[in-house]
Amino acid sequence: MHPQTNRQFVLASRPNGMPSPENFKLVETPIPELKDGEILVRAMYLSVDPYMRGRISGMRSYAAPVEVGQVMVGGGVAKVVESKNPEFKPGDAVDIYMGWQEYTISNGRGVRKLDPSVAVSTAEGVLGMTGLTAYFGLLDVCHPKAGETVVVSGAAGAVGSVVGQIAKIKGCRTVGIAGGDDKVAWILKDCGYDAAFNYKTTGNYSAKLKELCPNGIDVYFDNVGGQITDAVFGLLNVGARISICGQISQYNNSKPEMGPRLLSMLIVARAKVQGFLVSDYAAQFGPALTEMTGWVREGKIKYREDIVEGFENLPQAFIGLFHGENIGKRLVHVS
Amino acid sequence: MHPQTNRQFVLASRPNGMPSPENFKLVETPIPELKDGEILVRAMYLSVDPYMRGRISGMRSYAAPVEVGQVMVGGGVAKVVESKNPEFKPGDAVDIYMGWQEYTISNGRGVRKLDPSVAVSTAEGVLGMTGLTAYFGLLDVCHPKAGETVVVSGAAGAVGSVVGQIAKIKGCRTVGIAGGDDKVAWILKDCGYDAAFNYKTTGNYSAKLKELCPNGIDVYFDNVGGQITDAVFGLLNVGARISICGQISQYNNSKPEMGPRLLSMLIVARAKVQGFLVSDYAAQFGPALTEMTGWVREGKIKYREDIVEGFENLPQAFIGLFHGENIGKRLVHVS
Repeated sequence: MHPQTNRQFVLASRPNGMPSPENFKLVETPIPELKDGEILVRAMYLSVDPYMRGRISGMRSYAAPVEVGQVMVGGGVAKVVESKNPEFKPGDAVDIYMGWQEYTISNGRGVRKLDPSVAVSTAEGVLGMTGLTAYFGLLDVCHPKAGETVVVSGAAGAVGSVVGQIAKIKGCRTVGIAGGDDKVAWILKDCGYDAAFNYKTTGNYSAKLKELCPNGIDVYFDNVGGQITDAVFGLLNVGARISICGQISQYNNSKPEMGPRLLSMLIVARAKVQGFLVSDYAAQFGPALTEMTGWVREGKIKYREDIVEGFENLPQAFIGLFHGENIGKRLVHVS
Repeated sequence: MHPQTNRQFVLASRPNGMPSPENFKLVETPIPELKDGEILVRAMYLSVDPYMRGRISGMRSYAAPVEVGQVMVGGGVAKVVESKNPEFKPGDAVDIYMGWQEYTISNGRGVRKLDPSVAVSTAEGVLGMTGLTAYFGLLDVCHPKAGETVVVSGAAGAVGSVVGQIAKIKGCRTVGIAGGDDKVAWILKDCGYDAAFNYKTTGNYSAKLKELCPNGIDVYFDNVGGQITDAVFGLLNVGARISICGQISQYNNSKPEMGPRLLSMLIVARAKVQGFLVSDYAAQFGPALTEMTGWVREGKIKYREDIVEGFENLPQAFIGLFHGENIGKRLVHVS
C-alpha cells in the first residue's frame, strides 16, 4: 500500500556557531504516486556527518548550501518499497543520497544496490562514504610507505578509525589522537593503533607526540585542526604529507579562529598539505569498495557503529558529533 | 702573489627579531698556502638572501645553523686566483658557496665554472639559486597551465620577478603583489605581469585580489606569508596549487605570529600547499639552467640586479632585504 505521509527535517534557520535543534524543523508532506522509471524508498539508516555543518552555513563551500526551508541533505541506506524502474524491485536495499526524510522518490540515478552479504548499515560507514574518505585521503593524498609514522586526529571517528587500519595494512606505525579514554582504548584494542592519547586529558600535545613518534611524523591525516594540528606541524619529517579531511574543531566558529602561522614549517620539512573531497574520487569508488570489502571480510578492518534510534532524533544525533559523542560511525536508525 | 689576509664576517650573536649589524663581526684571518687539488678564489659578488635569516636563528631548520663565531654562509661568484687543481685555472669565474668572506680555498667540489658569454653576476640570480628557485617552485610544485591565474607575493624580488615571467611563458595570467610603487611599475613594465598592486598602499587585499583575479586563483607562489597569504587563501579555485617558497614577513618574529586558521579553505578548494627547497632539485639544475639561459638570451626573462658596493656592507645589505629595499636580486660587489 502506497504510504501517504512523509516526514522530513528542513532547515529552519542557519546556525550561528554550534547548531541547535531549533535550526531544524520536522514537517509532514504527502508522497506523490510514482511515474514510470521511478522508485520509492524508505530510509533504514540515515547518516549524520560533520561535513553537514558546512552545508548549512552561508559560507563559501564546495557545494551550494542547503537553503532555509529545504530538506537537510545526507546519505542513507533505504529499502525500495515501490518500483516502476526495471533496475530495482521492492525489498532491494540501496545507498542513496536522500537527505533527512523517511521516504524519497528517485529515478534511480546515483542509487547503489547493496551487497546483501554484508550488513547494510556499512554502506553509510566503513563500506561507504566515510570508509572511502579514509581510503582515498590516506592512500591517494599521502602515499604512506611501510615503516613510516602516520598520525591521525579524530582517530576514533568514522574516518579516523579506518585510516589507522589502512595505514597498518600498509606497514606503518600509527598514532591516534582522540577525545576520550574509551575512544583511546577502542582504537588501541580494535583498530590496531600502535599508540594513542586522549587530547582532553593531555596538557602538552607536542611533548606527547614527541614521545609517541620518536622518528617524527611522515603522514598526518587531519580530521580536527586547531591546536592538535599546530603540534603535529612542529614534528614533520622531511617530505611529510598531510591530508586535510576535516577541521571539526573549527566548523562552529562564527569567525576564523586565530592560531600560529604554520606555513614556514612546510618549507623546513618540504611538506605537502592537501585538502580533498571523497566525491572527487567517484570514478574510482568501485575498485576501492571491492578492496575495502575484502579487508573487512578478512578482519583486517574492524568498524564500530554508533546507532541513535529514531528519525526524530536526527538533529540531536548530528549536534552530538561536535561534542564528540560518537565512537565510530554515527547513524540514525529510522526503520 | 699569494694574498696574505682574508676578511670574513662571522656571526657575533644570534639576532632576536630583526637582525642588526652588531650580529656580525668583521675579522681578519691568514690565508694558508694551497695543497694539491685546491684552488684559491676571490669573491666578486656575494649573495644576500632572505633564507639566511633562518640559518642564523637557533630554531629548527633544514640545515645546521651557523654557530656564533662561524663564517656566515652564502653563495658567491668568485674568480680563481691560484690553482693546484687541473680543472680550474687562474681567471676562471666560478659559482661557489663560499660565505661572507673575500677569499676561500676549495677542493673544487660543488664549484661550478661559469659560462663566459653571460654576465657572471647572473650566476647568483636569474641563472643561479634564485632563478632555479622560481623555476622548480613554479613548474614542479604548481604545474601551471595556460589560461590559469598565477598570483605571486614578493613579485619584485629575485625569485618572484622570475616566477611571473616563467608563468607568462607558460601562458598564464600573472598578478603580482609587491611593496612599493616603483616595484609595481617595474614588474608591470619589464616582467610582463598582467596586473599588480602595492600592498603597502592597499587597504583590503582581498577586495583588490578579487578585482585583479576575476576568475579566481589557480596558482599562488608565496614568498611573503602573513596577511597577503590569508587573502589569497580565500580566493582559491578548485584544484589550486600553492608553492611556499618563503615567508619573509615571518622570519624576524621571535615567536610565531597569530593569524586566522586557513586549513578549512584547503578542503573547499581541494588545494595543495607545498613547501620546497631548491637544493632538493640539484640533480636537475643542469637542464633547468640550459632552459633558463635560453629564455634570458631570447629576452623572455628579464632580470634586475640591486648591487650594493663593498664587502664591508654585507650586513646592511642583508638586513635591508627585510625592509624591502631591493628590486630584483640583491648582490654585494666585492671586487
